[in-house]
Amino acid sequence: MTTNYRLCLVGFGNVGKAFAQLLLKKETELASRYDLSVTVTGIITGSHGAAINPMGLDLEKALALVNAGEILNSLSSQEAPNETTAFLAACPADVMFETTPVNPQTGQPALTHIQTALQKGMHVVTANKGPVVYGYQDLTALAEQKDLRFMFESAVMDGAPIFALFREPLVGANLISFKGILNSCTNLLLEMMEQGKSLDEAIDYGREIGITETDPSNDVDGWDASIKVAALVTVLMGVPLTPQQVDRTGIRGITPEMIADAKRSGERWKLVCTAERREDHIFSRVAPEKVSPDSPLFSVNGTSSFCQFKLDVLPGLGILESDPGPETTAYGLLADFLNIMEAA
Amino acid sequence: MTTNYRLCLVGFGNVGKAFAQLLLKKETELASRYDLSVTVTGIITGSHGAAINPMGLDLEKALALVNAGEILNSLSSQEAPNETTAFLAACPADVMFETTPVNPQTGQPALTHIQTALQKGMHVVTANKGPVVYGYQDLTALAEQKDLRFMFESAVMDGAPIFALFREPLVGANLISFKGILNSCTNLLLEMMEQGKSLDEAIDYGREIGITETDPSNDVDGWDASIKVAALVTVLMGVPLTPQQVDRTGIRGITPEMIADAKRSGERWKLVCTAERREDHIFSRVAPEKVSPDSPLFSVNGTSSFCQFKLDVLPGLGILESDPGPETTAYGLLADFLNIMEAA
Repeated sequence: MTTNYRLCLVGFGNVGKAFAQLLLKKETELASRYDLSVTVTGIITGSHGAAINPMGLDLEKALALVNAGEILNSLSSQEAPNETTAFLAACPADVMFETTPVNPQTGQPALTHIQTALQKGMHVVTANKGPVVYGYQDLTALAEQKDLRFMFESAVMDGAPIFALFREPLVGANLISFKGILNSCTNLLLEMMEQGKSLDEAIDYGREIGITETDPSNDVDGWDASIKVAALVTVLMGVPLTPQQVDRTGIRGITPEMIADAKRSGERWKLVCTAERREDHIFSRVAPEKVSPDSPLFSVNGTSSFCQFKLDVLPGLGILESDPGPETTAYGLLADFLNIMEAA
Repeated sequence: MTTNYRLCLVGFGNVGKAFAQLLLKKETELASRYDLSVTVTGIITGSHGAAINPMGLDLEKALALVNAGEILNSLSSQEAPNETTAFLAACPADVMFETTPVNPQTGQPALTHIQTALQKGMHVVTANKGPVVYGYQDLTALAEQKDLRFMFESAVMDGAPIFALFREPLVGANLISFKGILNSCTNLLLEMMEQGKSLDEAIDYGREIGITETDPSNDVDGWDASIKVAALVTVLMGVPLTPQQVDRTGIRGITPEMIADAKRSGERWKLVCTAERREDHIFSRVAPEKVSPDSPLFSVNGTSSFCQFKLDVLPGLGILESDPGPETTAYGLLADFLNIMEAA
């Protein structure tokens, strides 16, 4: 017997679209392995309108419309509000998937989307770091109170199962510290500098190929890395930490000379994230560090990311994610969904 | 309310002793976080006798006796058979922990120990690759039939949660291939050759410091690595594979000249394990390969191990375990136990 779940998608950018594609691709497998099927009852986007159909939207058509630059509203069987709170009130769903852009300062409006969905009785899966950093404890408590789940595997290291790892696999273990490379943009920029570019040239080229945002500060000044550190500390160490509390140095101080010097001694500059539980506080830092070939950080190339965890029972457990993309983030959303349903 | 579980330990070498120490260390935490306590009702060893006490053996005393080279029988409240089948018949327990030495050819006698324990109604946790390779499907089926669990997290990569990773965290994913360094002895021997030793000198030195066995063939000829490949393929790909079926080349052909050549070009020789699901079969190989600093295998030093998995939904997920020891293997046993009890 197959159980059908109704999903609504808040956000339909690269990750939201990749998730829709993954649902289509895995349809047969979900039925045969997990006895479940899904119906997407609503999609709300930033700039492509919204659509609701309690009987299910046609995902192929939704993808085609958005890829053609059109709005989704023609797919709707009823009026679909363009404002998320009203949309969630109108859309019947068991699970909300939240993939709107990160707001590194406040976590909004994702935080409100998630509260609203939980209040309405939906499980929530997000790829958004913002609400994890600014709302983990409250949202988890709210979810528990409603007998629902708040899940966010894709918020850090894309689809690499960094949060799930600390549930069943690392049961009985206590995290002492971690060290890693968590921001792919700066990792790529430093790599371009190794190929002879200045930081500004690398940023310009990054913009051309679409890996650097118009305002590169979020990456270059270490904010994105700090949000990820804050999310890992908050969830995995159980200590609320904001990105503002992370001792943060970006890569603007790295000169071509420093890159060349490192290269001569066989080393590389990397933007390294660190956190450590100390006696009465959490030490946390994002800063450039020189690493040598005998470090697992050395071979972390391109958009790959890596995090090495030190636990009371394991001196070093490293997780490497190579060549991520929207598809891997989409997988993290699917894994969260399946884990909610397996546990339900 | 705390639930008490009765454990029996079959094997009390480095791993068994480290497990006993971990139980002592985590006693308070097990009670406070998991509402459980444990009583070790029996221990049977290869050369230190056996002891059974249904009210619980004193682990501190057991450790002291064995470390002093004595036998355990003085701790016993009843006759403790020195033969494992009779021992298991006499020892009342909820879970058996099996840590006897690996038999790479047949998996015996561990296979029989585990069957006996399951038949007697005990869950089984083992750190032994043998029964995984030679009995995974039968033992899992027997356990299911008895509403019990057969767990073996520590059989590959010590306490790194390689098998648990493929349960909850990688739900909905399919393993396509993997590549890694899984034998720490050859990794150390190759490192000693990089420091100027011949293979024979490295083996001799390895014997002195206790990392190479008297007959080094199990490691040097790639058998241990092949058993690990077979275990991963059997469990994670769902295709029974024996070590004999792995295309196996050890490190005897690696000369000091080859090591020096690699060093000159900034590369290193590593004993690399590979497996890949192909159309109608599994390709699997253990063989020396030259790796460069941009490979995550390059920085795998000493006794560390690494495995990079390729899945249908994740192009690269690498797991690195650094500096393992009997304590990390012991943690894998504890994690299995807690997961059985959480699921029970």
